[in-house]
Amino acid sequence: MPELRQNLATKEWVIIASERSKKPYDFKKEAPSEPTPSFVQNCPFCIGNEDKTEKDLLVYPALDSRWPWGVRIIPNKFPALLPSPDCKIEPRRREGPYLSMDGIGHHEVIIEHPDHSQTPGTMTMEEIELVLKAYYERYHSLEKDCNNHLITIFQNHGVRGGASLRHPHSQLITTGIVPLHIRHLLFEAERYYDDQGKCIFCDMLRYEKSAGVRIVYENRDMVAFVPYAASVAYEVWILPRVHQAAFGKIEPQILHSLADVLRQILGRMYILLGDPDYNYVIRTAPYPFSDVPFYHWYFEVQPRISQRAGFEIGSGININMELPEESARRLREISVNPLLTG
Amino acid sequence: MPELRQNLATKEWVIIASERSKKPYDFKKEAPSEPTPSFVQNCPFCIGNEDKTEKDLLVYPALDSRWPWGVRIIPNKFPALLPSPDCKIEPRRREGPYLSMDGIGHHEVIIEHPDHSQTPGTMTMEEIELVLKAYYERYHSLEKDCNNHLITIFQNHGVRGGASLRHPHSQLITTGIVPLHIRHLLFEAERYYDDQGKCIFCDMLRYEKSAGVRIVYENRDMVAFVPYAASVAYEVWILPRVHQAAFGKIEPQILHSLADVLRQILGRMYILLGDPDYNYVIRTAPYPFSDVPFYHWYFEVQPRISQRAGFEIGSGININMELPEESARRLREISVNPLLTG
Repeated sequence: MPELRQNLATKEWVIIASERSKKPYDFKKEAPSEPTPSFVQNCPFCIGNEDKTEKDLLVYPALDSRWPWGVRIIPNKFPALLPSPDCKIEPRRREGPYLSMDGIGHHEVIIEHPDHSQTPGTMTMEEIELVLKAYYERYHSLEKDCNNHLITIFQNHGVRGGASLRHPHSQLITTGIVPLHIRHLLFEAERYYDDQGKCIFCDMLRYEKSAGVRIVYENRDMVAFVPYAASVAYEVWILPRVHQAAFGKIEPQILHSLADVLRQILGRMYILLGDPDYNYVIRTAPYPFSDVPFYHWYFEVQPRISQRAGFEIGSGININMELPEESARRLREISVNPLLTG
Repeated sequence: MPELRQNLATKEWVIIASERSKKPYDFKKEAPSEPTPSFVQNCPFCIGNEDKTEKDLLVYPALDSRWPWGVRIIPNKFPALLPSPDCKIEPRRREGPYLSMDGIGHHEVIIEHPDHSQTPGTMTMEEIELVLKAYYERYHSLEKDCNNHLITIFQNHGVRGGASLRHPHSQLITTGIVPLHIRHLLFEAERYYDDQGKCIFCDMLRYEKSAGVRIVYENRDMVAFVPYAASVAYEVWILPRVHQAAFGKIEPQILHSLADVLRQILGRMYILLGDPDYNYVIRTAPYPFSDVPFYHWYFEVQPRISQRAGFEIGSGININMELPEESARRLREISVNPLLTG
């Protein structure tokens, strides 16, 4: 019998229909026939092509002297939003019954590694930490622009993840609005806090620790688990143990612990699912909500191994074809050491 | 400068970033090198393979004596939910802070045509009308099962639309819950009604008629337009002119008008975008809300020509790379007569 589970944070129901699944190994992608080269002549993110992109916003030196740089952040060449030099919270414009406003915001690309063939699933912990440091630094720089109410940091990996370039990179977008999706998440969290006097995510963490069955990996500072109402198979949330509403509140030295967990999760998915297409996103509180007691930032990783289609669009209900406890067990049993260095 | 537009019905903001677009003709898919055959030996929906599927729930005779049947409805072989013989609104189960419930519901497949090579974009108006009649009949049959609070009728076309079989078909799923997504839509519509004393969709229709720039096609009973804050390029909404909260409230003879509009929209997309992958869904009120004055059912068609990725998942904000007025203009200029029969 299929089961419906409610996502405690979003109040969205998910159908867990494991009978509907093909056999789990069907989730595994075929390995490509040819290895990816380290350098591609016409890739704008490869070394030697630095002049083909916009001017750097930030460059970190390489960890390894073979490379000219470690991480670069540049403005997106085809930005979804454009920054404004002035601090202006635009009033909405009206057209009949509708509202619109100028598309003000920052859209940046984080080039994560000089090596074209790398993926976060095979990068070392130190390399991942460098990427997280770049996120952290841009998070705080962009906080100063009063047009920015929210920062969304995300990675699109693979064609089904929406990536148009193979070279390892992630992106950030800032917006002057707090979208409905986030407003709702905050509203439900505040309501829970009002009823229970506790952060809903801290409560979830406490319960997951005691239940154990959905935990994938943890270290001193961070815990990774498959959420109870995971919207896709192998979805993983990574939460800081300490209560923090915003990603920017993390102590810089804790980025090391986050890098450890992220490498474990992405590395295990890489092995178990065969370098799957995926998205990750940092679900952080909007800048003005950085200190609220009811919200808790987290890192969400979602492999793109099933297609969102008419039913999901129409109802907002996702269908997950594997029990979350089963996804967690499989991820827990993987060791990242055999394939990965660092 | 990109623009943000608010979807009046959902309160979701959309980024309209037409500068980010590749040239519009890039949206057009390549034509397949070989034509699709009318019959495929191992397709379970093809004629002669009727015994490979579950028992028919409904069969309509063919409009053309060449075929043994016109439309068939069968239970989905891999259902996301299972019907219950008893009328039971299950109480929720608790697990720690979480909620779950049995996965009760109907999941059916509508086989739209006996010809494997047909697509709704090339079907005649009479053939499309037969499919809509089947929706209508199942809508009312399933209304009698008190476990059904909502019916979602949808079509997944093409791989990016989430279709696993090429043979033309659509699906329906009934649920015992009204998902957050729909609850929110109803809540906002009721709030608008409370403020304005009018149905928000009737108001939208009135404004679109007067503005004209986003209208694609209309007949006596139905109007098709690209919504002001379309979440993807070439999204189209089809609304009845008369106020109706639920699809099941349509007068059966009006299905003919709906078939006319649907054929025009799907046929124009077929020509303009080259048989694009797409989803459509009927956004109808939950059964118990069938007569409310504030909600208005509509048919939503969304081509799958761009990939929903990390930013959309993280923020809930879609990026549409074409001005809705431009999408409407292009669709308006197409004539379906040259390619299509009927």
